[in-house]
Amino acid sequence: MEFALSQAKKTCPFLHVTSTSSLRRLSTLPAGAKKSNALLNKAQQCPVMSKAMEAQSTTSTVTTQHQTRAISTSRPSFQKPTAPTNAKAVESTDSVAVPPKAPFASTTTASKTTTSSTEKPVTLNTNSKHFDYESFYHHELEKKHQDKSYRYFNNINRLAQKFPRAHTARVEDEVTVWCANDYLGMGRNPVLTETMKRTLDRYGAGAGGTRNIAGNADLHLRLESELADLHHKEGALVFSSCYVANDATLATLASKLPGCVIFSDQLNHASMIQGMRHSGAQKKIFRHNDMGHLEELLQSVDPATPKIIAFESVYSMCGSIGPIHEIVGLAKKYGAITFLDEVHAVGMYGPRGAGVAEHLDFDLNAAHPSMGNGSIVDEIDIITGTLGKAYGVVGGYIAASASLVDMIRSYAPGFIFTTSLPPAVVSGAMQSVKYLKVSNSERQMQQINTRVVKSRLAELGIPVVPNPSHIVPVLLGDAASAKLASDELLSEHGIYVQSINYPTVPVGEERLRITPTPGHNQDMIDHLVHSLETIWNRYGFRRVNDWVAEGGRAGVGMPNPPQISPLWTNGQLGLDNVVQEPKVVKQSSSTVA
Amino acid sequence: MEFALSQAKKTCPFLHVTSTSSLRRLSTLPAGAKKSNALLNKAQQCPVMSKAMEAQSTTSTVTTQHQTRAISTSRPSFQKPTAPTNAKAVESTDSVAVPPKAPFASTTTASKTTTSSTEKPVTLNTNSKHFDYESFYHHELEKKHQDKSYRYFNNINRLAQKFPRAHTARVEDEVTVWCANDYLGMGRNPVLTETMKRTLDRYGAGAGGTRNIAGNADLHLRLESELADLHHKEGALVFSSCYVANDATLATLASKLPGCVIFSDQLNHASMIQGMRHSGAQKKIFRHNDMGHLEELLQSVDPATPKIIAFESVYSMCGSIGPIHEIVGLAKKYGAITFLDEVHAVGMYGPRGAGVAEHLDFDLNAAHPSMGNGSIVDEIDIITGTLGKAYGVVGGYIAASASLVDMIRSYAPGFIFTTSLPPAVVSGAMQSVKYLKVSNSERQMQQINTRVVKSRLAELGIPVVPNPSHIVPVLLGDAASAKLASDELLSEHGIYVQSINYPTVPVGEERLRITPTPGHNQDMIDHLVHSLETIWNRYGFRRVNDWVAEGGRAGVGMPNPPQISPLWTNGQLGLDNVVQEPKVVKQSSSTVA
Repeated sequence: MEFALSQAKKTCPFLHVTSTSSLRRLSTLPAGAKKSNALLNKAQQCPVMSKAMEAQSTTSTVTTQHQTRAISTSRPSFQKPTAPTNAKAVESTDSVAVPPKAPFASTTTASKTTTSSTEKPVTLNTNSKHFDYESFYHHELEKKHQDKSYRYFNNINRLAQKFPRAHTARVEDEVTVWCANDYLGMGRNPVLTETMKRTLDRYGAGAGGTRNIAGNADLHLRLESELADLHHKEGALVFSSCYVANDATLATLASKLPGCVIFSDQLNHASMIQGMRHSGAQKKIFRHNDMGHLEELLQSVDPATPKIIAFESVYSMCGSIGPIHEIVGLAKKYGAITFLDEVHAVGMYGPRGAGVAEHLDFDLNAAHPSMGNGSIVDEIDIITGTLGKAYGVVGGYIAASASLVDMIRSYAPGFIFTTSLPPAVVSGAMQSVKYLKVSNSERQMQQINTRVVKSRLAELGIPVVPNPSHIVPVLLGDAASAKLASDELLSEHGIYVQSINYPTVPVGEERLRITPTPGHNQDMIDHLVHSLETIWNRYGFRRVNDWVAEGGRAGVGMPNPPQISPLWTNGQLGLDNVVQEPKVVKQSSSTVA
Repeated sequence: MEFALSQAKKTCPFLHVTSTSSLRRLSTLPAGAKKSNALLNKAQQCPVMSKAMEAQSTTSTVTTQHQTRAISTSRPSFQKPTAPTNAKAVESTDSVAVPPKAPFASTTTASKTTTSSTEKPVTLNTNSKHFDYESFYHHELEKKHQDKSYRYFNNINRLAQKFPRAHTARVEDEVTVWCANDYLGMGRNPVLTETMKRTLDRYGAGAGGTRNIAGNADLHLRLESELADLHHKEGALVFSSCYVANDATLATLASKLPGCVIFSDQLNHASMIQGMRHSGAQKKIFRHNDMGHLEELLQSVDPATPKIIAFESVYSMCGSIGPIHEIVGLAKKYGAITFLDEVHAVGMYGPRGAGVAEHLDFDLNAAHPSMGNGSIVDEIDIITGTLGKAYGVVGGYIAASASLVDMIRSYAPGFIFTTSLPPAVVSGAMQSVKYLKVSNSERQMQQINTRVVKSRLAELGIPVVPNPSHIVPVLLGDAASAKLASDELLSEHGIYVQSINYPTVPVGEERLRITPTPGHNQDMIDHLVHSLETIWNRYGFRRVNDWVAEGGRAGVGMPNPPQISPLWTNGQLGLDNVVQEPKVVKQSSSTVA
């Protein structure tokens, strides 16, 4: 019970954001006609409290449509949900970004859990002719609850000295993190943290201004030189985040290029989708990695029209890899420029960690690591990356020709009108980029651990979306199952893997996204595999064979599956002379059903 | 000469962003028909190099339209420019954000400094039918050069141990920074930096994920509680920056509210302009702080239509203050919600540093600092602020009702799909907010120094845009003068004040924006005033009397000026019993012309 309460408190989005004084005030504030107070009225909207209150008062006319969240330690009843027949593609609807507007009449469509129209804070000078904003917000949130896309944040505090362990809301409660994007554990590498501490002493906490006004330091310039060199480009430009880099660059570039048409992979990240939308340019979406479809779309546009092909190297939710050579070829054929998001690849692939483009000419780039060596890296027009994932800090960037970089620097409001990154962040990121230009061991170990986890799960028939990268997407296929598996891993097994639901992945492709790191040891891997097996047994979640019987989904159990080899070869991992197969043959100790 | 070269190198946007290997490659890369190489071709576009090359070769047919930048130590010739008759308002044209498209034909409109169409990098598979991207980028940059809005970044490294001093590109060259937004010097306060160092040791460099996936720590939740309490709101939400907070919140809110109309102050910041644009909602711009105009516009919209009034408390480029009481009154009368950007006010105004809204009920809020005390703070629907200016770190936030915060948390892509702020950034910001909730001395000293600087400049007739806040905008009135004054302050007086030109301010209102801090001592103030006086004498820049004769501009020398009193009263600054006027009577030692 104590644990359930603790879980409830740390996952309650209301308690999270509400100050003690607000709580105190709400608890004594009369809500209106009903004999309750404002806090109790709010509690009607909580999936935990509303159930409790419902049970307490059998005379209540308010019924909640929420399901109780699976946060108690007792085993919840579970019914295997019906799989939807059509998985809904994310990018094709654009619903990640701005959901379609629905007409809203506050007097008729308020959610059932909103008990009374008098619930608004008393400070609002209510006028019945005016729009009812608070009811509208409740209504929008209710939609999230109803389609199960409402997000409960877990309280995760990653411990630098115990990587990849973290404490939860109670510092005594530690878990193993299996879903962070600090893929290589660089965030706790003393090369970074000691540098950052020295920079804090020397240059203070913040940059103190925009890049144009007092916020442009030598550190920023040196980091940009480092990144330009990394990607074989003339220039680079650092932004608050790669979300901002993608958004600002695509919006600025595509709005300026006259009549520009953007060709966008169906699975592109929300930041790119936003940038394209903000540009106002025409957009044509091609099916994920489908070169035939892309060429068909390119052919439909005048050769003289400026065109941008926007795609990613590693698609983070399924682990698939964009066909860089083929896309560059099509771009040259049809007069397009290429915009490649290497966010999930920088630090991780290539002999210097420049990403998948660098990895494709591994030996050449290892021997001659600079612009003009004839590798495919040189042929890409714009590469974007993050300093917040494998590099372990925060921030994003673009690398491109000097002119393009200068144009974005000169025109993009998202770059110009914002405080620049703190000196310590910049120095930490620069150390990380430099370190990973020469050290391969972290990314190699990450890849080896990835292979081990994939291999162990495959032995048990636990479905992993096949891919050649470092992502281990474990398919559940519906939001409730994914949420349940995630909650149970956390509450019963001390393992944190966030469930990934719509709109981050299409409906019907909900999953656990597991990200091994070099810090996960054999015991941790054993424990993860055993825990998943236990949960799969307990709830009868679908295994590979079940997906085969259903015709397959998201690449799992599909007829005539393509052969997929890891991007990092045995030779590149130094495994050629060790084992033929890195598969760990030790049998799981779990009870296979 | 050495200094000029050093200045040229540190302000050259090309050298800044270009790696050594790129430079090496460009310098040996043939550019085509002309007997030169790619680097020399690029140099044609540089205002410094192009002049030198022009002088070297009298047979050249290429003439540059650039002016040589005033970076040499010799005195440049200067002609007082003709003032434009109509200052161009920034927000009314929206040109801050996405400049209007102009048809571009690469064969005819290439800038004169682009010497040859073969200048493109050789890696481009040139096809004459295809769009010429590189020429287009050059063309766009050329427009910036021609309208004098091209930005040269200064290399400024603010020294924590010597605040407000900074070193430039050479660590030996130190200057006094007079334009940073680290208004209170909190960025070097050990309360922050020591906390951040401890957090680095405990939680590492980066957050490791989005708020939903592994990047939501107790620190983030505690900071949000602290901010909600600061602004008397139920909740708060932290973003990568306040640019992102404004953009994401306005875009999400105004796109979701059905038929929403936004009423926007003419001088609103670019981040708000972008958010409004991205929402797709109808926008009505009211003249800066003109309540009659705002009411007129509000009356034109149906009472039941959702409306947002977006405005700022301190407008950072002119220092004016938004009429919060009046706007809240109109909002209630016409059924609008209020969106108040307190970015330049948080930490600086009010008994707990909550901003101008808190300051308006200073005594009440000092005695009863919590929600429900009846102050105007309670009546504002959404307050946004930054952690990167007075609070000295980086990041931004909104504070509002729990439902609104939860809706933005649930729907805004700019919040959802980005790595969360690093733990050390969050802990530093939280310490800063807590510290400034109880310590008034920094903001009081900042205000006193502001009064002194304004008073000293007034004595000399150096024109300061009148305002009741902490900003000291010194009017030049044209881009060339503002740039010259800034360059000469830096190169001859060891003072860094960035010039502010279009599009950040309207054409004709170019200025130096001076920001005193508690760290500027009497000697520094004397030196600043003396240096400005020297420059005004040398170039004959217009003084207050000159502006009076011209009919005034930007509030300087206008007929029948309104009486403006500082927002911080003598009583609030503890000056009542000390002096009646904080004016420093010491005469400047400069030679008045």
